[in-house]
Amino acid sequence: MTKNDDESIIKSKGAREPIYSLIGLALTVMDYVINKTFDAQKATENCVKWIQDFFKNNGEGCNAIVGISGGKDSSVVAALCVKALGSNRVIGVLMPNGVQADIDCAHLLCDTLKIRKIVFNIKDAFDGMYKALPSDFEVSAQSRVNLSPRLRMSALYFLSQSLNGRVANTCNLSEDYVGYSTRYGDSVGDFSPCSHFTVEEVKAIGKYLGLPEVLVDKPPIDGLSGKTDEDNLGFTYQSLDDYIRRGIQPDKKSKERIDKLHKQNLFKLELMPSFKVNPLDYYK
Amino acid sequence: MTKNDDESIIKSKGAREPIYSLIGLALTVMDYVINKTFDAQKATENCVKWIQDFFKNNGEGCNAIVGISGGKDSSVVAALCVKALGSNRVIGVLMPNGVQADIDCAHLLCDTLKIRKIVFNIKDAFDGMYKALPSDFEVSAQSRVNLSPRLRMSALYFLSQSLNGRVANTCNLSEDYVGYSTRYGDSVGDFSPCSHFTVEEVKAIGKYLGLPEVLVDKPPIDGLSGKTDEDNLGFTYQSLDDYIRRGIQPDKKSKERIDKLHKQNLFKLELMPSFKVNPLDYYK
Repeated sequence: MTKNDDESIIKSKGAREPIYSLIGLALTVMDYVINKTFDAQKATENCVKWIQDFFKNNGEGCNAIVGISGGKDSSVVAALCVKALGSNRVIGVLMPNGVQADIDCAHLLCDTLKIRKIVFNIKDAFDGMYKALPSDFEVSAQSRVNLSPRLRMSALYFLSQSLNGRVANTCNLSEDYVGYSTRYGDSVGDFSPCSHFTVEEVKAIGKYLGLPEVLVDKPPIDGLSGKTDEDNLGFTYQSLDDYIRRGIQPDKKSKERIDKLHKQNLFKLELMPSFKVNPLDYYK
Repeated sequence: MTKNDDESIIKSKGAREPIYSLIGLALTVMDYVINKTFDAQKATENCVKWIQDFFKNNGEGCNAIVGISGGKDSSVVAALCVKALGSNRVIGVLMPNGVQADIDCAHLLCDTLKIRKIVFNIKDAFDGMYKALPSDFEVSAQSRVNLSPRLRMSALYFLSQSLNGRVANTCNLSEDYVGYSTRYGDSVGDFSPCSHFTVEEVKAIGKYLGLPEVLVDKPPIDGLSGKTDEDNLGFTYQSLDDYIRRGIQPDKKSKERIDKLHKQNLFKLELMPSFKVNPLDYYK
């Protein structure tokens, strides 16, 4: 979550029904999805075609630059890019902040996909930001947590602009739905292959693509506290996915938490608000 | 400009008529504007009201965090925020990269407005990013130029999330029109008061607000080469503003350059493209 993780952010947005707002689906669709199986092959093929079209239209011959954490999302996005562009046009960037406990998973992914990998440790830049602070400045937990993702974004573009690259976003729908990302950090990029797939769908694609189980099924951790995402969020991804895709209500407490997070984080998926100017109003 | 400063980015966008696309105005509006005077007082009053509404709805009691370069845009945005929120709720952040030749202007602005100022030198973080590079990595000019704005964005949020803040964007319409900003660097923020005012309109507001002339009329420089923006762009802001607001065609070479930059940089004002998923297509 970010600084805006408070009630005030939602006041202007009105009362939206969360299960419709992001994906614009009616309950009939949710009924349709219950007891059916996700077609990972078709999803993969269409997404690969979309990536190819993106590069054809926005950077013919460019390389996909993917930040590789060692988790399922970056693994699946990198694998989709390899299928779309070939392994010689995908570059994996490992960005530990000092020591990263599960960095082996990131290496495993790059080696499995046979893609070029760059290890770019953000610790010096991270420490440099702390050094720049006024001596009496008190850093909040939110400031600290969100600094790394923004430095990683800066690092990805720093490399990408020297490598004829386009930066891949690795968010999924479930995380985006509850705003589990950093504004202008991991929430952005040049193209986003998986941000409309739920966690279970991303995993299904990863399995279809034959990625190592350890990468696809590893519970995501936040890399700071060692807690899993699900610990931090207070509900399971399965209950979130059932709610988003199938309209199945989780327990009352989880439902309230999901709805609250969704409403207060919607702004992260939107452009910043700006003061609009109609010249007719200001020239006389 | 950024890495996408090439022809390929525009292929998928189709041939848009540049003078209409961004602001959606018909020629009649442009005719209307010719020979009329911009009402800086009305523009200031409405923009101040909009800033107040933004904070009421998205952060009651929060502080405006403004990166202060010493140029007209950050000066005017800071002054508008002071008028909207009071000087005790506006914090100016000076972010030199090492030594900044015109830093006195940034101090002058903060002192004139009587706002709290924080000097946050990004040099250590900047150097830290270079230290993280593989030894044989060749950094392009684009990578270098765009790194500072992204680190400044990271710094503004780093501070803002500890200061109960909302980050102001300081872009203007003229710069946005030709994409003279860095994606996810100075092009973003939490709210944008001036991104639909042209350069001449921003200056008129600055004068109306009584800002020192040296801040309002100083030719913007890029801070690296010492060149002015107008040198880099290859045309004057006045000819750009006449073209955007009044439909007055500049010389052929300038017109072609403006149209080209506009088309190839439109993506910076949009959300990144994402692969859309209709569940009906993928569950069987």
